[in-house]
Amino acid sequence: MTSRHMPGRSRPGTAILLAAAILFAGVAAESKAAKVSAESESTARQLIEQGLKDDLAMNLIESLTTEVGPRLAGSEADARAVQWAVRKYRELGFDKVWTEPVTFRNWERRSEGAEVLGEHRQKLVVTALGGSPGGTVEAEIVRFGSVDELRAAPAGSLSGKIAFVDTVMGRYKDMTGYNGVGSARSQGPSVASQKGAVGYLMRTVGTNYSRVANTGMTSFGEGVQPIPAAAVALPDADQLDRLLKKGPVRVRLALDCGWGGEVTSYNVIAEITGSKTPREWILLGGHLDSWDMGTGAVDDASGIGITAAAAKMIASLPVRPKRSIRVVAFANEERGLIGARQYAVAHAADVAKHVLALESDSGSGRLYAFNYSSAAEGGPFLESMKNLMGTLGIEHAGGAGGPGPDVVPMAGKGAAWAWFGQDMTRYFDLHHTADDTFDKVDRQAIRQNVAAFAALAYMAAQYDGSFGSAKK
Amino acid sequence: MTSRHMPGRSRPGTAILLAAAILFAGVAAESKAAKVSAESESTARQLIEQGLKDDLAMNLIESLTTEVGPRLAGSEADARAVQWAVRKYRELGFDKVWTEPVTFRNWERRSEGAEVLGEHRQKLVVTALGGSPGGTVEAEIVRFGSVDELRAAPAGSLSGKIAFVDTVMGRYKDMTGYNGVGSARSQGPSVASQKGAVGYLMRTVGTNYSRVANTGMTSFGEGVQPIPAAAVALPDADQLDRLLKKGPVRVRLALDCGWGGEVTSYNVIAEITGSKTPREWILLGGHLDSWDMGTGAVDDASGIGITAAAAKMIASLPVRPKRSIRVVAFANEERGLIGARQYAVAHAADVAKHVLALESDSGSGRLYAFNYSSAAEGGPFLESMKNLMGTLGIEHAGGAGGPGPDVVPMAGKGAAWAWFGQDMTRYFDLHHTADDTFDKVDRQAIRQNVAAFAALAYMAAQYDGSFGSAKK
Repeated sequence: MTSRHMPGRSRPGTAILLAAAILFAGVAAESKAAKVSAESESTARQLIEQGLKDDLAMNLIESLTTEVGPRLAGSEADARAVQWAVRKYRELGFDKVWTEPVTFRNWERRSEGAEVLGEHRQKLVVTALGGSPGGTVEAEIVRFGSVDELRAAPAGSLSGKIAFVDTVMGRYKDMTGYNGVGSARSQGPSVASQKGAVGYLMRTVGTNYSRVANTGMTSFGEGVQPIPAAAVALPDADQLDRLLKKGPVRVRLALDCGWGGEVTSYNVIAEITGSKTPREWILLGGHLDSWDMGTGAVDDASGIGITAAAAKMIASLPVRPKRSIRVVAFANEERGLIGARQYAVAHAADVAKHVLALESDSGSGRLYAFNYSSAAEGGPFLESMKNLMGTLGIEHAGGAGGPGPDVVPMAGKGAAWAWFGQDMTRYFDLHHTADDTFDKVDRQAIRQNVAAFAALAYMAAQYDGSFGSAKK
Repeated sequence: MTSRHMPGRSRPGTAILLAAAILFAGVAAESKAAKVSAESESTARQLIEQGLKDDLAMNLIESLTTEVGPRLAGSEADARAVQWAVRKYRELGFDKVWTEPVTFRNWERRSEGAEVLGEHRQKLVVTALGGSPGGTVEAEIVRFGSVDELRAAPAGSLSGKIAFVDTVMGRYKDMTGYNGVGSARSQGPSVASQKGAVGYLMRTVGTNYSRVANTGMTSFGEGVQPIPAAAVALPDADQLDRLLKKGPVRVRLALDCGWGGEVTSYNVIAEITGSKTPREWILLGGHLDSWDMGTGAVDDASGIGITAAAAKMIASLPVRPKRSIRVVAFANEERGLIGARQYAVAHAADVAKHVLALESDSGSGRLYAFNYSSAAEGGPFLESMKNLMGTLGIEHAGGAGGPGPDVVPMAGKGAAWAWFGQDMTRYFDLHHTADDTFDKVDRQAIRQNVAAFAALAYMAAQYDGSFGSAKK
């Protein structure tokens, strides 16, 4: 059990801290039951204090969104983002930095437009859904209040028409609004095609009354004819509603976009090597890719900045934590968690060694809740976290949350996950739109995020117990 | 003096009101000095009460912005707008409706784009300034904090460069913010060209952090080489600032836009014929054209709706007012008050008969102040207006304001003007952008505007005295 006492790398003037660490670790070892050391908790409090003054995360967010800008997975800019992440992680002095290849089919947007035809002719602001084929269609639109209404349309009833699914999204602190309307994007086009529609329009899944529309992936089921599919900005969806009250509305939808050949991008991984059990990992994830219209500031440069800054603070402690901490900048989250799936395949043998996995991918709002996958695990850890997170205004929400998107594949294989509830009230003003730019990032909230991520990651890395990870 | 008692059109059940009108009018005639009758004031109070429940203005705004949509002067949509105005004014039952031709050079936007080149390559959101020539230029940008800084640049120092004027606009209730930066749009391109610049970019004159840029006219002085000139959305201007801190920035600016041949549009005029002095007019103006990206809801469908609805309430009174009221939907305000200049030429002989002229062209915010051109005129009128406007939260602001844009040409010839101070706090989020759409119009504020315009127009039409109009 001596490895338990390995201090990792030390710095001058840390002798007292080290002595305390050894003492507490010894006590824990004797008691057998997992517990949280007072020394770890004290260090976590230091991390919180430091995090609340942290500007590294903001600097990283600024750097990625400015120097690289939009970085659609598979694009030339995505390749620059990978180089950026490798360079930054190295500069930050993590113990190891490496990349793992992720191969997927390319999809790109070249141009897009729509217009109302006839006596009220005028342009509409639309954006192609990711995965849409290109093509130009001119047809009358048929409005449905929801995907369920669309599903209820008789077979063939949309022959030669453009379906228009017009579900209004509410503004909430959490995912409630999105959950209610997301199927309009993910499933609507496929359903419309099966009813004979030649094109698909939907009220954008967003809460922003600027002339921006939210992109995001759609897919067509096996054997379903892909049709051009686009989101309509909120003012334009309202305009279609008003025009429909005046009579039939014909629309021309012209999308130049579509799938290309295979391309390779990379998950970029940085590691702080644990002092006691280096082959047990706490995973902090964000995703490096973004949609192509904004600069992906809240989705997800913020996650990249928060996780790197949190890990950097831990790496700067005089002693390496017991477990390793991995920061993963996932490739191609936006087109289907492609990097995360690849990671789960590549590291399938180590699922049980991924002690706890956590992603930051809900923007740049303040955190207000936390939870993790199994309340049956980590009792003393939970008590300690309640205290620590309480100082940041983050309450334990038992039963709430779930794995972040890029944690889903590993969680599916049995890895335990942690979760933070993040204030998303403004998130869907920006998500997947041209408006997702650096100016929208809230510096104070980012600091709170960094503090919380650092404290949680450190405490999990120090905790003697398990969180329930086991290969399924 | 019998014409003074002419009741115009009457309706059943109005005998008592008419008798009172005749009585008060008789008293006024005997006293010689101009005064305001208690009956007029009582009617004005009715108009205010009615106006605060008015939905006609909103219906007109909705109709124009939905059925016609964007209506750049000289475009096919502008012609539809003229037809719309003629039809609506006729439907509203004004005594006369006619058009007066306005001829001007066409300018149109076809496409526009910009991108940063080199290692940080990414697209920028820009919009061509009205009057810009088309063209594609690639060059390093040189930043100036203001047009004054640009003016101070040595001759020839911008040879082969793109000038970037980067003045931040503040958010104010009035025009303060705009006044400080408007010259970047009106004069900047011309100054830049004279210094040798091949292109011009400016931080957009606006307060909206969405990815929209504000267009608006610029012009090049006599003998100055026109260069492609565009406004950069606020997030993109910030992005250029950050990139400039990292090194030289090369930009490709590609505008397809420019001047065409002569086209003819129309001022559309509706009149309520006065019962006593039909050849004396109170003019209520708005402009029918809009920029081409939004649907011109606050600029200036609101003005069209407010003035028509205010006049319609007066036209619905049992008795025509003493003076005539003209509602003018001016053509091509946006490219230089072209319709208003034409009106001033066509009606130059009648300047002194334009007793008071007022425009609604500051959006859809609440009114908070009023004033008119000469405090020396209309004393009793002023006292009465203070009372009436006070009920709407509108205070007299002596010395403040000026003629609305389309009133300027007539005011220049000697016509008296009235002015309302309108809350413009949110106006420059929308002005000349794609975001100027119907959803931004504030129904309650529009009602307050209608009430105030109706009361002021009616009182001015009833007032025995002058406001100082005289041919200069």
